[in-house]
Amino acid sequence: MRKNLVHISGRLVPENEAKISIFDSAVMLGDTVTESTRTFLHKPFKLEEHIERLYKSLKVVRNDIGYGKEEMLRISLEVLNTNLEEYGASEDCWLVHNISRGISIAGSDPTSTSNEATVMIFVQPMDLRSWAPFYIDGCHAVTPMSRAIPSQSMDARIKNRSRMAYTLAEAEVKLIDPHAQSVILDIYGNVSENKGGNVFVVTGGVLKTPTTGNCLAGITRETTLQLAKKLGITAEETILQPYDLATADEVFFTSTPYCIMPATRFNGITIGDGRVGPVTKKLMAAWSDLVGLDIIEQARNQLKD
Amino acid sequence: MRKNLVHISGRLVPENEAKISIFDSAVMLGDTVTESTRTFLHKPFKLEEHIERLYKSLKVVRNDIGYGKEEMLRISLEVLNTNLEEYGASEDCWLVHNISRGISIAGSDPTSTSNEATVMIFVQPMDLRSWAPFYIDGCHAVTPMSRAIPSQSMDARIKNRSRMAYTLAEAEVKLIDPHAQSVILDIYGNVSENKGGNVFVVTGGVLKTPTTGNCLAGITRETTLQLAKKLGITAEETILQPYDLATADEVFFTSTPYCIMPATRFNGITIGDGRVGPVTKKLMAAWSDLVGLDIIEQARNQLKD
Amino acid sequence: MRKNLVHISGRLVPENEAKISIFDSAVMLGDTVTESTRTFLHKPFKLEEHIERLYKSLKVVRNDIGYGKEEMLRISLEVLNTNLEEYGASEDCWLVHNISRGISIAGSDPTSTSNEATVMIFVQPMDLRSWAPFYIDGCHAVTPMSRAIPSQSMDARIKNRSRMAYTLAEAEVKLIDPHAQSVILDIYGNVSENKGGNVFVVTGGVLKTPTTGNCLAGITRETTLQLAKKLGITAEETILQPYDLATADEVFFTSTPYCIMPATRFNGITIGDGRVGPVTKKLMAAWSDLVGLDIIEQARNQLKD
Amino acid sequence: MRKNLVHISGRLVPENEAKISIFDSAVMLGDTVTESTRTFLHKPFKLEEHIERLYKSLKVVRNDIGYGKEEMLRISLEVLNTNLEEYGASEDCWLVHNISRGISIAGSDPTSTSNEATVMIFVQPMDLRSWAPFYIDGCHAVTPMSRAIPSQSMDARIKNRSRMAYTLAEAEVKLIDPHAQSVILDIYGNVSENKGGNVFVVTGGVLKTPTTGNCLAGITRETTLQLAKKLGITAEETILQPYDLATADEVFFTSTPYCIMPATRFNGITIGDGRVGPVTKKLMAAWSDLVGLDIIEQARNQLKD
Amino acid sequence: MRKNLVHISGRLVPENEAKISIFDSAVMLGDTVTESTRTFLHKPFKLEEHIERLYKSLKVVRNDIGYGKEEMLRISLEVLNTNLEEYGASEDCWLVHNISRGISIAGSDPTSTSNEATVMIFVQPMDLRSWAPFYIDGCHAVTPMSRAIPSQSMDARIKNRSRMAYTLAEAEVKLIDPHAQSVILDIYGNVSENKGGNVFVVTGGVLKTPTTGNCLAGITRETTLQLAKKLGITAEETILQPYDLATADEVFFTSTPYCIMPATRFNGITIGDGRVGPVTKKLMAAWSDLVGLDIIEQARNQLKD
Amino acid sequence: MRKNLVHISGRLVPENEAKISIFDSAVMLGDTVTESTRTFLHKPFKLEEHIERLYKSLKVVRNDIGYGKEEMLRISLEVLNTNLEEYGASEDCWLVHNISRGISIAGSDPTSTSNEATVMIFVQPMDLRSWAPFYIDGCHAVTPMSRAIPSQSMDARIKNRSRMAYTLAEAEVKLIDPHAQSVILDIYGNVSENKGGNVFVVTGGVLKTPTTGNCLAGITRETTLQLAKKLGITAEETILQPYDLATADEVFFTSTPYCIMPATRFNGITIGDGRVGPVTKKLMAAWSDLVGLDIIEQARNQLKD
Repeated sequence: MRKNLVHISGRLVPENEAKISIFDSAVMLGDTVTESTRTFLHKPFKLEEHIERLYKSLKVVRNDIGYGKEEMLRISLEVLNTNLEEYGASEDCWLVHNISRGISIAGSDPTSTSNEATVMIFVQPMDLRSWAPFYIDGCHAVTPMSRAIPSQSMDARIKNRSRMAYTLAEAEVKLIDPHAQSVILDIYGNVSENKGGNVFVVTGGVLKTPTTGNCLAGITRETTLQLAKKLGITAEETILQPYDLATADEVFFTSTPYCIMPATRFNGITIGDGRVGPVTKKLMAAWSDLVGLDIIEQARNQLKD
Repeated sequence: MRKNLVHISGRLVPENEAKISIFDSAVMLGDTVTESTRTFLHKPFKLEEHIERLYKSLKVVRNDIGYGKEEMLRISLEVLNTNLEEYGASEDCWLVHNISRGISIAGSDPTSTSNEATVMIFVQPMDLRSWAPFYIDGCHAVTPMSRAIPSQSMDARIKNRSRMAYTLAEAEVKLIDPHAQSVILDIYGNVSENKGGNVFVVTGGVLKTPTTGNCLAGITRETTLQLAKKLGITAEETILQPYDLATADEVFFTSTPYCIMPATRFNGITIGDGRVGPVTKKLMAAWSDLVGLDIIEQARNQLKD
Repeated sequence: MRKNLVHISGRLVPENEAKISIFDSAVMLGDTVTESTRTFLHKPFKLEEHIERLYKSLKVVRNDIGYGKEEMLRISLEVLNTNLEEYGASEDCWLVHNISRGISIAGSDPTSTSNEATVMIFVQPMDLRSWAPFYIDGCHAVTPMSRAIPSQSMDARIKNRSRMAYTLAEAEVKLIDPHAQSVILDIYGNVSENKGGNVFVVTGGVLKTPTTGNCLAGITRETTLQLAKKLGITAEETILQPYDLATADEVFFTSTPYCIMPATRFNGITIGDGRVGPVTKKLMAAWSDLVGLDIIEQARNQLKD
Repeated sequence: MRKNLVHISGRLVPENEAKISIFDSAVMLGDTVTESTRTFLHKPFKLEEHIERLYKSLKVVRNDIGYGKEEMLRISLEVLNTNLEEYGASEDCWLVHNISRGISIAGSDPTSTSNEATVMIFVQPMDLRSWAPFYIDGCHAVTPMSRAIPSQSMDARIKNRSRMAYTLAEAEVKLIDPHAQSVILDIYGNVSENKGGNVFVVTGGVLKTPTTGNCLAGITRETTLQLAKKLGITAEETILQPYDLATADEVFFTSTPYCIMPATRFNGITIGDGRVGPVTKKLMAAWSDLVGLDIIEQARNQLKD
Repeated sequence: MRKNLVHISGRLVPENEAKISIFDSAVMLGDTVTESTRTFLHKPFKLEEHIERLYKSLKVVRNDIGYGKEEMLRISLEVLNTNLEEYGASEDCWLVHNISRGISIAGSDPTSTSNEATVMIFVQPMDLRSWAPFYIDGCHAVTPMSRAIPSQSMDARIKNRSRMAYTLAEAEVKLIDPHAQSVILDIYGNVSENKGGNVFVVTGGVLKTPTTGNCLAGITRETTLQLAKKLGITAEETILQPYDLATADEVFFTSTPYCIMPATRFNGITIGDGRVGPVTKKLMAAWSDLVGLDIIEQARNQLKD
Repeated sequence: MRKNLVHISGRLVPENEAKISIFDSAVMLGDTVTESTRTFLHKPFKLEEHIERLYKSLKVVRNDIGYGKEEMLRISLEVLNTNLEEYGASEDCWLVHNISRGISIAGSDPTSTSNEATVMIFVQPMDLRSWAPFYIDGCHAVTPMSRAIPSQSMDARIKNRSRMAYTLAEAEVKLIDPHAQSVILDIYGNVSENKGGNVFVVTGGVLKTPTTGNCLAGITRETTLQLAKKLGITAEETILQPYDLATADEVFFTSTPYCIMPATRFNGITIGDGRVGPVTKKLMAAWSDLVGLDIIEQARNQLKD
């Protein structure tokens, strides 16, 4: 059993002692920005970019935590490396940042706090078992009835933990299929994003994904677009609608843990010929190349344990 | 110094030990529903109605906590009464419920949890100092640039703690006036609600407030409408727009802690003659009658301490 | 076997010969307005009102069929009575009107036709078997992902046969439950209507249904509101949202064939205590009184056959 | 007089016997998907692409007709060639596919049917007389008051026969000019499409047309964009608004029968200098080249007959 | 020839000398609020209410003109009475207020001005000839393609002279009929208002008009609702859509000059039986009673001159 | 003191005599289209393009002034050159065109007038003092609560003087900072435009600005995009949202008088490192090169006087 040391505002504590006050604005207001980075072969993938985006989120929510990106990087690597000592060579992990504004004062201005920000940094084993079958068979992509929060209410690019709307949408797609993965639409009916990832289609050989006007500017999304460019696959950031998914040749999701997750059904309709398509496969292979391990094999090995 | 005992999922612990895991879905997902009840003369005001609404929220977010409203009432009164022993006769308090889905499992379905719901029930002194001056002078009501989350994304009537959007809106109105109180508009430009309360105007003797189609179904809102009926004041639930506030004779907010908070300016424009108006005063007096104490005096006494 | 005589633009033909040209605008353009009336004890229910609404639809779609409401009533009764001769005393039927603009000329103005309107009037046995179980157990009300066509595109009050959007929405709700009944939302996320009926909730003893601003002005809806008035049940035409259905005490649909269809689940959430509620029962009884037969018994008897 | 043999679900019948039951879902629900291909010199233009799109429509409306694209192509050519035997060398025709879900069962799930799909395939002479004058003088493009059905209600890319909304919009533009051609706006006020075609503008030498986010993905539209590319004309898929049409140098429509139809007035405002412009002419010439006949001459010859 | 003395910021000048600088914010920014009152038998109708609304407009546009409603009333009556001396007994007039922020400084903050507000008050003969025929025959009500400015952009209740959008809408309806009167829709497709008046329908004996959520709070509208109440006609402020006008029994407009203007056609569709209806007639008679002269006779007498 | 001769419909008059009737549609209806051109070293910048756009505006508002662009150019240069005689070598000026439909007739069709258009052409000194400090320190960009008028109500590309909505938005941003510059959002929450200019961001070296789908097609905007191209700076016309401004490296406005105005704060948030950025500086230098004078020096010299 690993001890899993957690960083909480400067202190390192074992996971089972990693607690915060119920009066923290994280609990009282969902006032937490976040990043989740994963390792490949124990190396954090694009950690600097995650920290860059973390500080963008902090800026937009007007939370000044008192130190900058370099110090955050140093602390993060410390937390990561300390914990990785107890990981096996074939095991990878998440490195998660959660930062709230600190203790919330009842009845006062929610933007002010009585103390410093609460910085939580922790490591968790990369458990890929729920996604592993999808690399081969594809998942079932389903649109919930609820719609994404529009940017004029709160921009999806602020990566945050006020995620009840996502949880409710997820519960809706599970009504159709307990293993369904969500394709959340924006309030105009255009494809926005998955609960925790981005959505891509391949049609006539062209890769398409929504612009970041209505979804998270995913780092995995960005990396996938870069890989496509390298592979000579034409890619477009454009408006996608359910019709595009239902009639696509291929559909897949991108997100930090699984990199690429193929979908072979959409709202009960078979996508293409119902099998993971050639462009998706090419991109998964390119991801494996990029990160230095076979991402499909790693996930499927976990199923065997 | 009071010890402030907090109920956490069945245990009573002192406030400074009231902590939850950073892996709780309250922290990881903002997945918390909530109620805040206040006491008047140590008696909780409409606690049954708050618990009724709490169970509506739990139902809509699909969180089954394992016991019902009667048991919740019993526990709540226990927490309240235990803590009230240490309160002075003139002191009142909040009774707050926060309930999450429990520990969140990374990478798994966010609607499932590994254990029971996390039930947090606590008492906090009713600190009215920030609102006390407004009973006499009125506050400055200001509309933020951001807009309320539409019901098709997440219904405002689910009283919840995924409140980052409200916090950002609040930060926006503070740019205009550090003591401003928010009048959040919906995405169509109609008045929705205050960060933590409802909005009323008085025009030509008629009391008006938005329908609950785009705002919280506030218990203080409902009580105020009942008092108006009793006082013979015509009241309408209708669409309100910034024009209505700017040209109103009177404007006020309603919320659990202050009952009624008059506003005398709106986006820099003087409302009516710039003084708290007669209908507002009549309703504040009726509130004092209803709860058995002078709500203005109670608040202003706190300023003297 | 009944011969079922069908009226087609002035001729009476047996059902199996009741055909129209594939070049009719009914087929080429979905350019058909419609009404469906049912009988109770062989008497057509509010046939004059159905014909009144039919002529409103004809007016709005600018289709002048050459004769008026009185003549339409006369013909309709003729078709009905001819066919009813072959019905048993306990059997009831639909009387359906479908009227298109006639033959469509390829490439020409779709609003002009080469001949007279195609008037189709026919009778079908009232088959209540699919709804019969719902009177006792309630049905499962489900919201599709697709949204109702907004009135600025085509007003839902034009009762018409360009219904592909309704069919697609219906297919969506069947993904969740093969017996689900649709609660279609408008593009703002408010409850609009069922594929072929209207939606009501009962909350705190008050009956609520959407205004006709975004749904069909159902004759059964109107009759139900009149019965509620007679029974002293307060009723409101207002905005309803999914939250209202999930937290209602009772939910039901109204439509011509079944009058009232109780719902006991909404998107997987149990409504009230999961049983058909007292207000719904009172209204079903009032319907039985009004039409002179026990509507529940009639439906359930069909299941026995 | 040609006999015009029509294919109905496997049988070939003369046009005047080409009828379907009034209980077919084509009539009862407008539940028909469709394609219209035309011939040039008796050769069907891009028939494979039309059939490809037909099967996309079938997929999205969840109608499985029991055989695939190859068989459909074979049958289509058979219907076409049989009928073309009676056409003169200078005569061309439409080849139209209409496919419904078959007989509709009253009161039952509209997505289920009692029998096989109804497949209608027929040929009609290409009557270009109503458009012929526009090649020389340009037509009058007019925006109706009604707006296109949004994709979240039903995607315009499903080529279907539930077209009452288009017919009503068409009737509106005829109020302004009996020969007006519709420029339907979407619900946000952006240009969507013509009743049966797409809209292009030329401004400063650049060709612009809406993306398929809010209009039919026209095959003639696609072909026109390909011709523009070949001719070295810069083309953009973008947002167009009425201002763009009123201030354009040139405006034209594209659709299967006429290929390109120039417009020289927009809502009563003269476009450019009021004459068919040079880019439009170049594209019309390229179309004539592509299809091997002078499209303008063919149309204008029909006027002489 | 009357001299028509005009008040400009404190001076009385003859009409042909009534000029303002082209640098006035009225010209440079359309920054003018306004009211138009009319006389009946030389008495100004509800002048106090018009001045009340004028000061609401001034407040919302943040223009402090330096004196209050009483002084404005005194000046207005002075201008009116001076000019009325030259009017015949049967002649009536407009009393118009236009108030801008004064001279605009190029490149500076448009909300600041270099001098005092420009107050323009003038009288014009009440020319009713364009509306007179409509009292008997009804007018043609037509919806333009453009939509009303939404309240979140600028509230229609600010009676102002930045009216280019209304002028463009008016030009659109004249494309259909040179005598058409506009029924402007809001951006959601609901009836908003006429270029200078409000819209009413009568359906099944009930009078209906939009709420002021999307239209001017017309004083004639308000008076008409009061007259309806007095006459025992049920009236509702509600959502109206084109369908409601097309299928109404009666339709009419209200505005200061004509009080009530019946409409007998809507977008080319005959309203009711095509004649001015009984409720409209009753209300016109009540107006005549209220103002002490026969409004129809007065208008039609002008046609004879 | 210069005499400043103003052209009014064919006559040249001194500025203090430059007046129009208060009955002109410019005053009565805000019915004025406009252009503002500036000189650099006494030469008008892109005057032909401004006149081109002026005639587009005239066309869309259906105002035929009786003569064409060449004549307008000739008159404009005459007005400009006459006035420039009195300007010093280092002084520059605005050349402003305001054109209304002429005298408005009360109660008649607003699109018709009793006489010719009112053409106002005048010159004003280029006063840059309010913007001069922003070249060095950057301004504070602020979003108002009100939203831009949508194109379906009135297209922002019609450069007009019905600008009350802009003035109200400007008053709102001044509540936050008396020197704030507005970033007006459209009704969907996307960045539209500044009161009198366009908005650009620089992020990761890429220049981004909204498409003209929701803002004025600024000539300075277009020129800036051309300069960027020349400098090898990648530029995109895209959707921008408040998040993009808050997290940008650089933000600036473009408008005729100041060419480029850097912003270093957005809604109170520091942009980048709070200083004018390198891309902005490069573009300002390119502007100075293009127009042949140091635009920053010219502006700052005015502060010294």
